[in-house]
Amino acid sequence: MSALFDTRHIVQELASARQRWREAQRRSTEPGGRELPSREELNRIVSGLRGVLFPMRLGPADLRQESEDYYVGHTLDSLLHALLAQVRLELRFAARLQAEVKTEQLDEQALDIVRQFARALPEIRRLLDTDVLAAHAGDPAARSVDEVLLCYPGILAMIHHRLAHQFYRLGVPLLARIVAEQAHSETGIDIHPGARIGESFFIDHGTGVVIGETAVIGRNVKVYQAVTLGAKSFPTDAQGAPIKGQPRHPIVEDDVAIYAGATVLGRVTLGRGAVIGGNVWITHDVPPGASVTQARVRDAQREEVSAGSRQPTPLPH
Amino acid sequence: MSALFDTRHIVQELASARQRWREAQRRSTEPGGRELPSREELNRIVSGLRGVLFPMRLGPADLRQESEDYYVGHTLDSLLHALLAQVRLELRFAARLQAEVKTEQLDEQALDIVRQFARALPEIRRLLDTDVLAAHAGDPAARSVDEVLLCYPGILAMIHHRLAHQFYRLGVPLLARIVAEQAHSETGIDIHPGARIGESFFIDHGTGVVIGETAVIGRNVKVYQAVTLGAKSFPTDAQGAPIKGQPRHPIVEDDVAIYAGATVLGRVTLGRGAVIGGNVWITHDVPPGASVTQARVRDAQREEVSAGSRQPTPLPH
Amino acid sequence: MSALFDTRHIVQELASARQRWREAQRRSTEPGGRELPSREELNRIVSGLRGVLFPMRLGPADLRQESEDYYVGHTLDSLLHALLAQVRLELRFAARLQAEVKTEQLDEQALDIVRQFARALPEIRRLLDTDVLAAHAGDPAARSVDEVLLCYPGILAMIHHRLAHQFYRLGVPLLARIVAEQAHSETGIDIHPGARIGESFFIDHGTGVVIGETAVIGRNVKVYQAVTLGAKSFPTDAQGAPIKGQPRHPIVEDDVAIYAGATVLGRVTLGRGAVIGGNVWITHDVPPGASVTQARVRDAQREEVSAGSRQPTPLPH
Amino acid sequence: MSALFDTRHIVQELASARQRWREAQRRSTEPGGRELPSREELNRIVSGLRGVLFPMRLGPADLRQESEDYYVGHTLDSLLHALLAQVRLELRFAARLQAEVKTEQLDEQALDIVRQFARALPEIRRLLDTDVLAAHAGDPAARSVDEVLLCYPGILAMIHHRLAHQFYRLGVPLLARIVAEQAHSETGIDIHPGARIGESFFIDHGTGVVIGETAVIGRNVKVYQAVTLGAKSFPTDAQGAPIKGQPRHPIVEDDVAIYAGATVLGRVTLGRGAVIGGNVWITHDVPPGASVTQARVRDAQREEVSAGSRQPTPLPH
Amino acid sequence: MSALFDTRHIVQELASARQRWREAQRRSTEPGGRELPSREELNRIVSGLRGVLFPMRLGPADLRQESEDYYVGHTLDSLLHALLAQVRLELRFAARLQAEVKTEQLDEQALDIVRQFARALPEIRRLLDTDVLAAHAGDPAARSVDEVLLCYPGILAMIHHRLAHQFYRLGVPLLARIVAEQAHSETGIDIHPGARIGESFFIDHGTGVVIGETAVIGRNVKVYQAVTLGAKSFPTDAQGAPIKGQPRHPIVEDDVAIYAGATVLGRVTLGRGAVIGGNVWITHDVPPGASVTQARVRDAQREEVSAGSRQPTPLPH
Amino acid sequence: MSALFDTRHIVQELASARQRWREAQRRSTEPGGRELPSREELNRIVSGLRGVLFPMRLGPADLRQESEDYYVGHTLDSLLHALLAQVRLELRFAARLQAEVKTEQLDEQALDIVRQFARALPEIRRLLDTDVLAAHAGDPAARSVDEVLLCYPGILAMIHHRLAHQFYRLGVPLLARIVAEQAHSETGIDIHPGARIGESFFIDHGTGVVIGETAVIGRNVKVYQAVTLGAKSFPTDAQGAPIKGQPRHPIVEDDVAIYAGATVLGRVTLGRGAVIGGNVWITHDVPPGASVTQARVRDAQREEVSAGSRQPTPLPH
Repeated sequence: MSALFDTRHIVQELASARQRWREAQRRSTEPGGRELPSREELNRIVSGLRGVLFPMRLGPADLRQESEDYYVGHTLDSLLHALLAQVRLELRFAARLQAEVKTEQLDEQALDIVRQFARALPEIRRLLDTDVLAAHAGDPAARSVDEVLLCYPGILAMIHHRLAHQFYRLGVPLLARIVAEQAHSETGIDIHPGARIGESFFIDHGTGVVIGETAVIGRNVKVYQAVTLGAKSFPTDAQGAPIKGQPRHPIVEDDVAIYAGATVLGRVTLGRGAVIGGNVWITHDVPPGASVTQARVRDAQREEVSAGSRQPTPLPH
Repeated sequence: MSALFDTRHIVQELASARQRWREAQRRSTEPGGRELPSREELNRIVSGLRGVLFPMRLGPADLRQESEDYYVGHTLDSLLHALLAQVRLELRFAARLQAEVKTEQLDEQALDIVRQFARALPEIRRLLDTDVLAAHAGDPAARSVDEVLLCYPGILAMIHHRLAHQFYRLGVPLLARIVAEQAHSETGIDIHPGARIGESFFIDHGTGVVIGETAVIGRNVKVYQAVTLGAKSFPTDAQGAPIKGQPRHPIVEDDVAIYAGATVLGRVTLGRGAVIGGNVWITHDVPPGASVTQARVRDAQREEVSAGSRQPTPLPH
Repeated sequence: MSALFDTRHIVQELASARQRWREAQRRSTEPGGRELPSREELNRIVSGLRGVLFPMRLGPADLRQESEDYYVGHTLDSLLHALLAQVRLELRFAARLQAEVKTEQLDEQALDIVRQFARALPEIRRLLDTDVLAAHAGDPAARSVDEVLLCYPGILAMIHHRLAHQFYRLGVPLLARIVAEQAHSETGIDIHPGARIGESFFIDHGTGVVIGETAVIGRNVKVYQAVTLGAKSFPTDAQGAPIKGQPRHPIVEDDVAIYAGATVLGRVTLGRGAVIGGNVWITHDVPPGASVTQARVRDAQREEVSAGSRQPTPLPH
Repeated sequence: MSALFDTRHIVQELASARQRWREAQRRSTEPGGRELPSREELNRIVSGLRGVLFPMRLGPADLRQESEDYYVGHTLDSLLHALLAQVRLELRFAARLQAEVKTEQLDEQALDIVRQFARALPEIRRLLDTDVLAAHAGDPAARSVDEVLLCYPGILAMIHHRLAHQFYRLGVPLLARIVAEQAHSETGIDIHPGARIGESFFIDHGTGVVIGETAVIGRNVKVYQAVTLGAKSFPTDAQGAPIKGQPRHPIVEDDVAIYAGATVLGRVTLGRGAVIGGNVWITHDVPPGASVTQARVRDAQREEVSAGSRQPTPLPH
Repeated sequence: MSALFDTRHIVQELASARQRWREAQRRSTEPGGRELPSREELNRIVSGLRGVLFPMRLGPADLRQESEDYYVGHTLDSLLHALLAQVRLELRFAARLQAEVKTEQLDEQALDIVRQFARALPEIRRLLDTDVLAAHAGDPAARSVDEVLLCYPGILAMIHHRLAHQFYRLGVPLLARIVAEQAHSETGIDIHPGARIGESFFIDHGTGVVIGETAVIGRNVKVYQAVTLGAKSFPTDAQGAPIKGQPRHPIVEDDVAIYAGATVLGRVTLGRGAVIGGNVWITHDVPPGASVTQARVRDAQREEVSAGSRQPTPLPH
Repeated sequence: MSALFDTRHIVQELASARQRWREAQRRSTEPGGRELPSREELNRIVSGLRGVLFPMRLGPADLRQESEDYYVGHTLDSLLHALLAQVRLELRFAARLQAEVKTEQLDEQALDIVRQFARALPEIRRLLDTDVLAAHAGDPAARSVDEVLLCYPGILAMIHHRLAHQFYRLGVPLLARIVAEQAHSETGIDIHPGARIGESFFIDHGTGVVIGETAVIGRNVKVYQAVTLGAKSFPTDAQGAPIKGQPRHPIVEDDVAIYAGATVLGRVTLGRGAVIGGNVWITHDVPPGASVTQARVRDAQREEVSAGSRQPTPLPH
């Protein structure tokens, strides 16, 4: 009996494919280990940080209130050291792409980043508390703040975002992105870690929400499912490559509400207290207090309704 | 070498943040254990109930048809006891929020809830069978009822919903919500456990579907991705807080089809056999048999098409 | 103390429900084991194949470049044998539905399928490399090709699709569907494994994208979140059952861009280089180079904006 | 940077070593999978059978008495099928060594073996109950039969032995040996699965006990730690290879007690009710009711005691 | 195809066997859950306590010295609550055997037991430190105290014993026994939790050591492998049942050394500083400072040596 | 309700205990991480090396002969890197104890050690093959060499020993000890990694075997359970501390057999082909070809047999 599969041949072809890619991308073909941060490890760290921020709600099931500080202290210390290793990986990888690896300096920089991140945690907890209150106030179906923290995908997305945004600000954008994409996968809410979001932010339902890298959002803003705060287009350089980092997403001022399916594109400003109706499409500024709806469109639709006779229907329990 | 991070200080600040929250929310600051049901445990229970309902498709891989009853009996008994513990947690938590904890009475109530839930399982299985048949009939890409049960996110969402709706009806809305959000996370389909849905319900693709708490849906209804059955607005009390529990979502009668991206808002009625076209926006009743489309909108769009020369393009295999 | 739950009765009722279903669906009521492929096993296999295709990025964390071939060889061989078992399960299940089980012949066929699948892997890797490059070129927020491979949900969806499409072509559509739905669950991107997609395909954000079974997509195509390439309606046979397998989804030629929320329905053709604006609704052919936007709709909307006074708002950091 | 280890060279040398071994042992050098039963799988099966035999003591922690039969039925059926696969592996491996593989016949034989094994389980349970009672009666430190079943290594060893002995009798000695060695590793008690042991057998402490393949033990026998029931020597054939399967270990009749460290070698008989003292060495028959001790040896020792002055010593609590 | 195994019949027979046992042992045949403490849970608790006692050596790999107190506090609190549940199970089980269940009183008693256990932990740590030093001083192969703590089975056995002895003293002998048997299984050292052992106790190699329930051991005692401190016989009551709890094992005073394989039986006293040679058999008191050896036996043996010619043999590296 | 346990107080007392120990042992009280190699990690490495040495017997269950080299290559490379980290930990720890940490030099030394270890693996495989053959030849109950490799504790002990001995020789005695103790725990066989053992070594049953650090064993030696090759006493220095590393255990030449329970103490030589009977006690050289038995002792014992009447006893099946 001979081998079922011609593994040897396929292994060679896959090796050739990798070789071609590495040459084209000028990646090392030398021996060496994993260069990039690990998604699994980041997920473990963020999952632990959820418990550090909200020990009795998102921490271990057997935790008791009287030993919260012990739990927080032990877990935090352990996670920060694990995070330090991931920050180092990203800094070295970034430096290698620019052919400038000064290991010692990078290690100091990594330590500095994790220290700043750690110091930001209490403020992140405070901001998340405002988000929880906003969700409770904004959703008639919410029964308690506890239910909100435990169940709402919008809160999960904001926990990840407020952590990821710190990573973004501190200069480790790849870690930031991994953290953000984890929330995207679990909730369908896609917030770029670069977005700046004020306190008391509420996302209801959330599936399909997209918020772009340079978006700026004020306080007490409400957003419903499938809302996009996107870019209209982006400037390209002489070679046609997109110029990265330009402000290209909307500014949303305090107290704005944006209903489901609305699309806001480009560096436009939605003024304080504006209300953006469902499914509308915005590419220009909206003045403070204004209300944008789709009335005419709906009028047009109604004329298309064809006749039919109303009959009673038994409904489920 | 000194400690890398000033953990002690951050632990204190986080403790202060928790203290402030607890005082503001009038939560206990006394010693004590976890008060809320556990998402992980609920997920384990529901995952087990999937196997109880469909042993040879969603049960353990090594199960054999001749010992289905053994498996169902053992698993069911074990899961109901686990569920009892979670129901107790919710009832006690709810009672504590209202400062009225009579443990004994709550325990009887918990037992009664789980007993009723258990008795409902055969009917839930029957309803899910109609959902599977509806999906098979409604999707030209479906090859067999088995494929539908195994693969379709809409079926997964309905398994969770039909279980969660029982929890909702029996007075444990937090458990209901946890079960619903688990399906939301896995499928992008967000059905509030309060929604009443008749037999033979079919959701195709499903990502972005939102069905609100007081929606009522008849038999043989079809819904496609990104459909919203939502509330237009909700009444608020004197303090501006939303009044909870008011009927505020649509009634959908038998045999209605709602195509992708349509939005139906408010306590409107879609009459028996109505067809709602893709992307339309409905805030008024639709008579039985009527068909609502977006024709005019599409006409308007067509005029915006700029010229271009058609050329043949090679296509992938 | 008597038993808390009347398990015996519920077990019987559930058994009756299964019995009725099996009789109605003409399924076997005889002793026997699991007949269908296993989602868990398929997920394990595909997760392993991700590592085989991109060892240093998606393989085990402790892999080193100098032993990539060892890892690829061992993992590939092991996964192909596991896959063979799943292919056999699907072939036998399909044959049983048609009452024609010739085990020996099916086993040869299964082996043939897995061999062809294995041979396609290097080309799949090559195609995925073009997808990664397309994402890097198309997204101003992308910092490196490595970040794209590690983080982008669109890339995850394409890894699954390109594998699933092979399964579909080789005659194991259930395996194909399971692999596709796994990506759908993780990313919110729902690509039917039957869709034919050319190289350098880029999906940005992705949540809510739906691409139908008979869609055909050329090279260098870009698609944003919530785009639907769907069917308008499908032909039914004399009994009203949908006729399966008819071409009913769009053809998208090379270099087309389709912006967020656009819906393209039916066997229409989007000509080479066409640009489809956000939220537009297409049910007719679009000529090469044409640009379709929603300008008139937006004009209509603007008139609905109610007045308001612009005021400065402090923004978050 | 070059690879740290010369893996390639070592891989080749290890391959050569395997090649030499296979040639010397006339093992196949052809492609193919694992031929031998799996220790891990056997351990899983036996661990499950412990729960089948004693559901409320050694079964799952959440089992309840009212659903014991469900648990036993489901677990038993699943384990017997898993066992069938292992029995097949052993039968085929044995047949291959003798170059006579008739797969179909072996499969029937395997099924027959597992059926007989299953039928023996109730009698095994009954025998183990007698062992538990014997341990409770024989150990002044035993507080309840429940403690004995839960804690005593001698009981664990007998559960394994009574299962392993069935395997031995039914013609799958390799499975038998794996099961026995698992108990040996956990308890330090080494009972060859061939040994025939009557009811109410009690092993106290147990570490170092060795009972050989052809030993025959009656009812109500007690054995303490480090007792050996071994072979004195074994006949060899013309080539000097040991002749396998000859009776060469002791016969121990009913009601015998053998104290710690005693060694009994060869096909000798310890008559009914005999008492063998600690550390004695027996190579001849002992008549019924006799008592063998080491008195003279102890006399000899006492003379070696050197003088010393007794002083009071404070003792721990 | 019919079912492969007659599971139904075997399930019934096993149920009958359980029924007979329960009737004979007067155990409940009513519905109800697990009544006994769980070995798995106890093992988890003890494994955690090892880390509480020696955080940087036996705690989690990523622990750092600066957060030891956090780790110890969190882990201890969590384990004590888990322990409380196990103590309750044992107390209730014991009360049920005596038909006197007063739940409330038992719960207070359980709490009291765990509190006393917790308070004993610092002293247990101190005693274990003396054991580690004794092992380091007594074994020429020991390189550091750290190696001793990490590797020596005798230390593992003493960690378990000193915890188990507390359980024994506090009135939960079943928990004590489970903890002791876990060490027995891992090390081959069988110390009954009732044994009272002074500080600086050293067991070398350890396999086969047996120390009985009423043994009393002073300070600085050394014991080698296969030493037994056992009972000669035990008094029985009128019905021939052993009378439990009588002193029946040796008293070993300070500074005694007992070499490998020695057996000491009955309530005898080995006086301070006595040395018991390998393999000797003691059933009488030994005076302080005395040395007992097996000289005569060895003389006898030497005469049995048959002649042979010495030849040089090459030895392994 | 106040906290159940006074955790805070116990945490402080445990911290004081650690502080006292660290001061007494002059251990660091500074912040810092785990300093010692990890038992869990070593066990993982050795478990992997078993598969590298015997891929089709002790490797993964789904491995196939045609991809052995891939498996061996990938696993070996990964394990050697993991081992390198553990070797570094031991070298640094040892250096710190002697207050001489030169990290760079130690890293080179660590790499050198692992390289030498890797190169020794093929010879270790060859030696283990001879051990397997010796067990097969020496045990009349052994049915095949495969059974021996799969089941015999003596083989497991020798796999660990031959790996541990390499670690010992290469200067990482703590790793060596951890590997040896793992086998001791699983088999009851305690071989110090320093012992030098020739090819074709066979340990039958094994429980209680102890072989000391400086023992030297030739080829074709057989040893049975509870055999000790120990030290009689060891020289101490002026302070009474044992002098480490002196030859103090027996030399056993080729073709010697040592039966169960025999004790050989001190730097004596058992000459080529000598046979040491069960339970004998040796402290002097034994000439080549000699046979030492316990005949006189047994004669003495026989006189102690008290009379009894032989009666037939029914025996178990």
